Amino acid sequence: MGKSAEEIHPVKAFGWAARDQSGLLSPFNFSRRETGDEDVRFKIMYCGICHTDLHRIKNEWGSSKYPMVPGHEIAGVVTEVGSKVQKFKTGDKVGVGCLVGACHSCDNCINNLENYCPNKITTYNATYHDGTTTYGGYSDHMVAKEHYVIRIPDNLPLDVAAPLLCAGISMYSPLRYFALDKPGLHVGVVGLGGLGHVGVKFAKVFGAKVTVISTSPNKKKEAIDHLGADSFLVSRDSDQMQAAMGTMDGILNTVSAVFPPVPLIGLLKSHGKLIMLGGPEKLELPGVSFAFGKIVTGSAIGGLKETQEMIDFAGKHNITADIEVIPIDYVNTAMERLAKADVRYQFVIDVANSLKAA
Amino acid sequence: MGKSAEEIHPVKAFGWAARDQSGLLSPFNFSRRETGDEDVRFKIMYCGICHTDLHRIKNEWGSSKYPMVPGHEIAGVVTEVGSKVQKFKTGDKVGVGCLVGACHSCDNCINNLENYCPNKITTYNATYHDGTTTYGGYSDHMVAKEHYVIRIPDNLPLDVAAPLLCAGISMYSPLRYFALDKPGLHVGVVGLGGLGHVGVKFAKVFGAKVTVISTSPNKKKEAIDHLGADSFLVSRDSDQMQAAMGTMDGILNTVSAVFPPVPLIGLLKSHGKLIMLGGPEKLELPGVSFAFGKIVTGSAIGGLKETQEMIDFAGKHNITADIEVIPIDYVNTAMERLAKADVRYQFVIDVANSLKAA
Repeated sequence: MGKSAEEIHPVKAFGWAARDQSGLLSPFNFSRRETGDEDVRFKIMYCGICHTDLHRIKNEWGSSKYPMVPGHEIAGVVTEVGSKVQKFKTGDKVGVGCLVGACHSCDNCINNLENYCPNKITTYNATYHDGTTTYGGYSDHMVAKEHYVIRIPDNLPLDVAAPLLCAGISMYSPLRYFALDKPGLHVGVVGLGGLGHVGVKFAKVFGAKVTVISTSPNKKKEAIDHLGADSFLVSRDSDQMQAAMGTMDGILNTVSAVFPPVPLIGLLKSHGKLIMLGGPEKLELPGVSFAFGKIVTGSAIGGLKETQEMIDFAGKHNITADIEVIPIDYVNTAMERLAKADVRYQFVIDVANSLKAA
Repeated sequence: MGKSAEEIHPVKAFGWAARDQSGLLSPFNFSRRETGDEDVRFKIMYCGICHTDLHRIKNEWGSSKYPMVPGHEIAGVVTEVGSKVQKFKTGDKVGVGCLVGACHSCDNCINNLENYCPNKITTYNATYHDGTTTYGGYSDHMVAKEHYVIRIPDNLPLDVAAPLLCAGISMYSPLRYFALDKPGLHVGVVGLGGLGHVGVKFAKVFGAKVTVISTSPNKKKEAIDHLGADSFLVSRDSDQMQAAMGTMDGILNTVSAVFPPVPLIGLLKSHGKLIMLGGPEKLELPGVSFAFGKIVTGSAIGGLKETQEMIDFAGKHNITADIEVIPIDYVNTAMERLAKADVRYQFVIDVANSLKAA
């Protein structure tokens, strides 16, 4: 018989876990590994609640393992570093996003696209190199290889920085990769949730004209007055949509699971790019779109190098997430509200001040 | 009452036209305009038969106008130029491709993408600025504005150059635009027809490793020995397909109407590009592809500036189409054979030697 997780991982840890597909979270004692040579251990101060967490705790994607400690927007302060760690020391402000491992030998890894490594290891609900299950940031501390640890700029408070490690890179990476980061372009952002609202902020700093596209006319004021979008398009208003046809260089669709692509493709210029950030089961496209060189693509988070670049850029330009800070014992209510999109724009758990060991 | 086409266009012309959706072509007397200030008139020597011609004569896309003189791969020799024409003189080798007009004021036109101008005028089956119907290259001569006339390099024979004006630019433009023109990339070409075979040639000259993807194993020898492809993939062979997963930087799908995109997407690397050259009615894609940053797009011919660039490049590198030259009175048989893909790789009508005025 192999060793148990507790034998492999002797450091006591505490968090909240989902136990089954009801998704209800409750206090959970578990363990983490000792600090290896290349590891950074840190006290978790804040952890964002990503919509992925909601899908995962309810096993909506079919591969959930229980008990599950969710959370991949993790920010904290270093408490210990391994002997080979070079970039971090005790007291540093750091974070971990969606990944804690990859193969480091495939083409994707070599090109700093660990996010597309076929053997990437996600921060929770995955199996680590040592055979144990990975546990996320709804917990008191974290340990990860230095490669997966992001330095958080001094000027960014940890609570508003945490969501950037998933939502931020998810928007920054496609804006960069698909060359939508040039001043004067017209960028559409579909949906104003955790991803969408930081997408507007990044696109504005890149110098784009930003149009928020939404089904709800009542989000217009906040999109323009609060987030700084240049215009607002109600997707159900056919006159508005018609007037905007062929005007956009790119569209970040943060709600692709529910938003049909057809009207969005019409908004693009020739060679314009529709970037799907969500994962619909399948997608039906009108073939004729392709006769105008329009581009449909997707993107999923980003590599570690680019994540550091993203948060350094955010620090330089003071880009942060707009959040509602909650104590851990509000997390089940927060999940219910998230399911109804009742949050502006993202929940962040105040881990350090509310998580008490049982 | 307005003037008739014959009054507006007093210059007698002769060609072969389809009269109804049977698609049968037969001799046809019509007229073309006088040589305007910006016009180039030329004697047609050769005209390629594009698969589009077959769709159009049979009204398969629903917007055919009869009588229709098809043909948009037209090569010939200048016989007259207008007073403001600067680039051409009598005796020059020239050609006209798919377009004879556009608005010249939209964003696409300003960016040399007349092919995406919403008011572009195609070489046949369209309505010209003066209200008359455009007639294509299955005819004795052509007149077009200088902007739409391409100079054919001296070293390229007109018969093997003619198909480049449609098939050539259709492959060259996406290879360039989607950055598949860099040495060392792995490019797939689906289908070995008029487009595919010149696609292989351009990609090889750009320095790619080229894999031909086909349903027919019996095309392997010609793909590798004759066209110079590096490898050949039988799409129905799941072992071969599995072994090639995740290896390609880009795929030019010349038979997108019949080839399902799903297995092709699997062949792409992350951020790889599937480029649809045909126009399926609609396209169903697995949403999960987008989670790996894969790109689905399309392309339709190219702008006039790029078409000239393409044929100059073809001249420099001796890229020509492999053709079967036919007399005009074989055209109906050629259409039947084309419908069965029974041609290597494209028919070209020897207009000058076989078209006799009735």
